[in-house]
Amino acid sequence: MLGTSTPIPRGERARERVLRAALEVLADRGMPGFTMEAVARRAGASKATVYRHWTSRATLLVDALELASEPFPRPATGQLRTDLIELISRLEALVDVPPFARLMAAFIDAAERDPTLWALHAHITERRREPVRQVLVEARERGDIAAAADIELAIDLLAGPAFYRRFIAHRPFPEGHAAAVVDHVLTALRRLQWTT
Amino acid sequence: MLGTSTPIPRGERARERVLRAALEVLADRGMPGFTMEAVARRAGASKATVYRHWTSRATLLVDALELASEPFPRPATGQLRTDLIELISRLEALVDVPPFARLMAAFIDAAERDPTLWALHAHITERRREPVRQVLVEARERGDIAAAADIELAIDLLAGPAFYRRFIAHRPFPEGHAAAVVDHVLTALRRLQWTT
Repeated sequence: MLGTSTPIPRGERARERVLRAALEVLADRGMPGFTMEAVARRAGASKATVYRHWTSRATLLVDALELASEPFPRPATGQLRTDLIELISRLEALVDVPPFARLMAAFIDAAERDPTLWALHAHITERRREPVRQVLVEARERGDIAAAADIELAIDLLAGPAFYRRFIAHRPFPEGHAAAVVDHVLTALRRLQWTT
Repeated sequence: MLGTSTPIPRGERARERVLRAALEVLADRGMPGFTMEAVARRAGASKATVYRHWTSRATLLVDALELASEPFPRPATGQLRTDLIELISRLEALVDVPPFARLMAAFIDAAERDPTLWALHAHITERRREPVRQVLVEARERGDIAAAADIELAIDLLAGPAFYRRFIAHRPFPEGHAAAVVDHVLTALRRLQWTT
């Protein structure tokens, strides 16, 4: 570690290594295989190390998922359409990455069977909706979309197809899918200006 | 069975009882708990009965899911908008039924880990898309939506929000959600008439 100007404390490195191992175990085996033992083994750490940072499987899971689900940064293309295309393209790319897709699928299943995970998943998704919401709210303020535009519904229409195509229809994303989704939704959100 | 004009053969009744038990086991325990033993126990049948109809867990699963995922009948309201609202309302109601939702979630997870289930899930979803496709294709032929309308993308936009809201965002469906989704998508599909 000589030459590193800001050394990472040893505990922090161990913590992140365990969290990354937790994500790998989840992706590989889903919730049934997600045990403190399996995560310690994958991380090359002792069970004691894992238990030093997390008292239970649930608290470890929460931290691992927070690490994996940072929302996308707010785009700065300067235009509503291109900002949204950037966000939806990133979403389509993310759900297509095998480890993330498996993690997501395991989590969808686990959330149905555990109210804590249900609430955690809702919270993570809520954070992910935020950059899309910001872009749309500002566009509404500028008059780029209708004053009556329903922002939450617009987010459902923008984000829904990526998840549906990947996890329900199991279809690949055709070239230009994100742009086509955005163009359809924007047409509806702009058209509202004349009909309401 | 006296008085029944068309008696159901004994084997058929046993078969359906086992399939319904299979769906219950899947919904309760997900794929990890889905074993021939558990299904036989739930159905009050012997393992021999189960194995008489199905040679493996996978073939039993296929038949159980076919039973649970009959596509919606083609609506006949006589209007594009109300036909689509009927289909999307039924979809929202279906994904909100706890046993179906759990089954769906278990299947999403299992499909990530098993190519056979992936293909089966894709096939089931494809069948479910068919009534929506029919309604849209006929509307395009009549000129109710743009000749250039992308029907497959329209289905993604119509069906995506229901799954996304239920399994990813974990948000309830507000009153009128299905109608609002349909109105946004139709606005886009009609507007294309003037822009292309």
